[in-house]
Amino acid sequence: MKRRDFFRNGVLASLGVASFAPGLQAANHASNYKNKKAKNIIFMVSDGMSTGTLNMADLLFYQKTGKRSRWMDLYSREGVTRSLMETASANALVTDSAAAGSSWGGGRRVPNGSLNIGSNGEEHMPILQKFKAAGKAVGCVTSVQITHATPASFCVNFKSRSAQPEIAEKYLDLKFDVMMGGGDEFFDASKRKDGRDLYGDFKKAGIAVARSKADMEKMKGGTPVLGVFSEGGLPYAIDRENDVELKKNVPSLAEMIRKAIDLMKNNPKGFAMQIEGGKVDWAAHANDAPALIYDQLDFDEAVGVALDFAAQDGETLVVITTDHGNSNPGLFSNSKVNEKFANLYTTTKSNEWLLMQLSHENTPAQVRDLIEAYQGIQLTNEDAVAILKDYQVVNEEGMYDSGKRPMHLLAQLQAPHTSIQWGGTNHSGDHVELAMYGPGSQKLPAFIENYQLHQFMLDAAEVGNLAFAY
Amino acid sequence: MKRRDFFRNGVLASLGVASFAPGLQAANHASNYKNKKAKNIIFMVSDGMSTGTLNMADLLFYQKTGKRSRWMDLYSREGVTRSLMETASANALVTDSAAAGSSWGGGRRVPNGSLNIGSNGEEHMPILQKFKAAGKAVGCVTSVQITHATPASFCVNFKSRSAQPEIAEKYLDLKFDVMMGGGDEFFDASKRKDGRDLYGDFKKAGIAVARSKADMEKMKGGTPVLGVFSEGGLPYAIDRENDVELKKNVPSLAEMIRKAIDLMKNNPKGFAMQIEGGKVDWAAHANDAPALIYDQLDFDEAVGVALDFAAQDGETLVVITTDHGNSNPGLFSNSKVNEKFANLYTTTKSNEWLLMQLSHENTPAQVRDLIEAYQGIQLTNEDAVAILKDYQVVNEEGMYDSGKRPMHLLAQLQAPHTSIQWGGTNHSGDHVELAMYGPGSQKLPAFIENYQLHQFMLDAAEVGNLAFAY
Repeated sequence: MKRRDFFRNGVLASLGVASFAPGLQAANHASNYKNKKAKNIIFMVSDGMSTGTLNMADLLFYQKTGKRSRWMDLYSREGVTRSLMETASANALVTDSAAAGSSWGGGRRVPNGSLNIGSNGEEHMPILQKFKAAGKAVGCVTSVQITHATPASFCVNFKSRSAQPEIAEKYLDLKFDVMMGGGDEFFDASKRKDGRDLYGDFKKAGIAVARSKADMEKMKGGTPVLGVFSEGGLPYAIDRENDVELKKNVPSLAEMIRKAIDLMKNNPKGFAMQIEGGKVDWAAHANDAPALIYDQLDFDEAVGVALDFAAQDGETLVVITTDHGNSNPGLFSNSKVNEKFANLYTTTKSNEWLLMQLSHENTPAQVRDLIEAYQGIQLTNEDAVAILKDYQVVNEEGMYDSGKRPMHLLAQLQAPHTSIQWGGTNHSGDHVELAMYGPGSQKLPAFIENYQLHQFMLDAAEVGNLAFAY
Repeated sequence: MKRRDFFRNGVLASLGVASFAPGLQAANHASNYKNKKAKNIIFMVSDGMSTGTLNMADLLFYQKTGKRSRWMDLYSREGVTRSLMETASANALVTDSAAAGSSWGGGRRVPNGSLNIGSNGEEHMPILQKFKAAGKAVGCVTSVQITHATPASFCVNFKSRSAQPEIAEKYLDLKFDVMMGGGDEFFDASKRKDGRDLYGDFKKAGIAVARSKADMEKMKGGTPVLGVFSEGGLPYAIDRENDVELKKNVPSLAEMIRKAIDLMKNNPKGFAMQIEGGKVDWAAHANDAPALIYDQLDFDEAVGVALDFAAQDGETLVVITTDHGNSNPGLFSNSKVNEKFANLYTTTKSNEWLLMQLSHENTPAQVRDLIEAYQGIQLTNEDAVAILKDYQVVNEEGMYDSGKRPMHLLAQLQAPHTSIQWGGTNHSGDHVELAMYGPGSQKLPAFIENYQLHQFMLDAAEVGNLAFAY
């Protein structure tokens, strides 16, 4: 079994200091964008990010590097504005990602699960269709399926977010400029129930298809781009960074956004795009602390790319937020909290990855060795027995693809070693953090309801509102 | 057993719309205080307020009244500034209230448990001593013991926050203008271990002593005032408002701050005071949702009083924040979240109050009836049996005075009925919300470390820094 010392070049190295461009320091941004309109809009969502998620990622980054995360670093600059955002949906005080995204995307609250279709069936035109009609290049980048609720909420109208195969087809009609993330399961002929070769259809329609990081890097523009880099969601950042093959083939959010900006920035009427750190939400549902914090830092690196571009460009509005809280994690007080949190600094695998290596046929000693090797945590024999026992039960409690592994049990057993605790395994109704930088940001009120952002963005870009003609 | 219908005039009525003065709307505040110095400073701390606490109180208030809480309402006004505050202590990523208060009070981080004494014994002069030396009237108002960590951190230097009897004596030396809260146990001769009649000594020193709301209302100024309204902490707001005797005798935070402002506002050189919603922290430790949310609204009403005064006055800087997260509660998603949260609208007693009515001699039916009567929640017979069983165990898990009652068990059993869940029972390391209004507030950066507020307040008031002469 490898020891954790073997993993010195962890994800923090790749997320680290070297990526800090001096753009923000150099530019006199407050005056740089004053009275301009937002030619470009970059809308960034760390999906399901509770306050504690943002804060623990910042604490960890600061402890490791002596610098604040890019998101927090922005707050020490001139020209940033902040808002607390209320996140309810049309039918619940606690929203899902489809309704939250639709409130931004369509400008109206809709019931949970819906994509821009109201309680009475009314269809609200998605914002990227409006920006496209105004001549902008448009797109979405995500770490989950590109057909998942949050990107879909800026693009399409569907009664149910679960219509991912049909959403993939709709993307073919829309021919948006850059659509990148996971979701091979909804494009590949051998994986779709209807056997349709959607990749083939995209290519026939003149859309370039990228299936790896190398493919993506080669893209030169001139045609729309579809990038699909994983069967479902992309791997967690911590697992990608510590696996040579994954790191070679699967781009990070920062790499995707950098490429997306390059592909769209020369459009004469500008661009609008959404970037989603979608697996922050998945990690929160699974109470997977290493996955959560390092995916938040992966998102944070993308924030840095967006801010550096915006600082140089002077015509780009960057919006950084989340759609709702999830599981309300926190670093909790105890006499050794600093030492315990430090276990996360050298962790090299997500809980999900670890539990995928195991089955009920392993021995307790193997469970303990594996977890110690990759996370530096010494579970008891009793803990290991409990984990193995859980493999014998078909367990429906989890979300997405974590349901058949004892994710929540491991989180519970891990908590005394990391001091990270969780309030649950689902979304919360917390008001959430929102930051803006660039032209239009000075008009942001200190408190906003999620749906108000739709008109706010149109106004910032001076793009007229549109509705579907019936 | 009384039914909950009997409690129509609950705490919300008293916290409600009638208290909304039009001050903020009327005043053109941004220009009202521009380029002025802060003659007065009101520093408001909802102790141990996680993001979810602030947000659930706002959601509840909004659902009941159609208006946002005063804190959130402030965010829709011109002239408010906000910051995210980092809260660590000198020795831990998660602070206690003594160290957090000392960072503001003394301008330096100190180890957890200490009041303005650093790791090497160095004493940092508390901020109210500096403001007093500058000729301002100074004071503290709290819902816990006036000798408790947070008020003490603005007043005194002690190696340990637990020196409350000695802190009470130190207050006699300091003769601050208004000190109001609970803590009879540290002033009354029959309750102090040394048998000293501290009330008598305060009176001999020319300090007026108030022991009830009526006493307090009669105070006319001209002498310093000590107000002590409860043996330990004051009762929770929800219990006070729904008990005729308590409501008559024990002032709310809003009533105390209104009086404190009246007593100090005519001082020619202004005033500086700290207001603490201290039992928000206690409710969070105990996972007592009704206590938590209604004490947060009690604090919010006090925020309204401070803001209304500041809007009229134009020379008052109001700081509104918390010292650290606690237990990271949230309203969690499920199919009936709105209906379940609505149980809180008509709840009339805290969990603590309910559990104090019970002992192991009650029947399960009595437990169920009691909880249904005051909280509208129908526990199962099994739940009631578990609660009664817990009374037979001496239980050390709780904080402050909740340790001998099954607070955390009740919170767990209550969660499926309210959708409110908790990440733990202790402080969290979350960065926290901070808002400012009034002269100096425009200089607030969007991210701040707790100790930086000390110099910030001195600068806003144009008061020079001082140190102890040795």
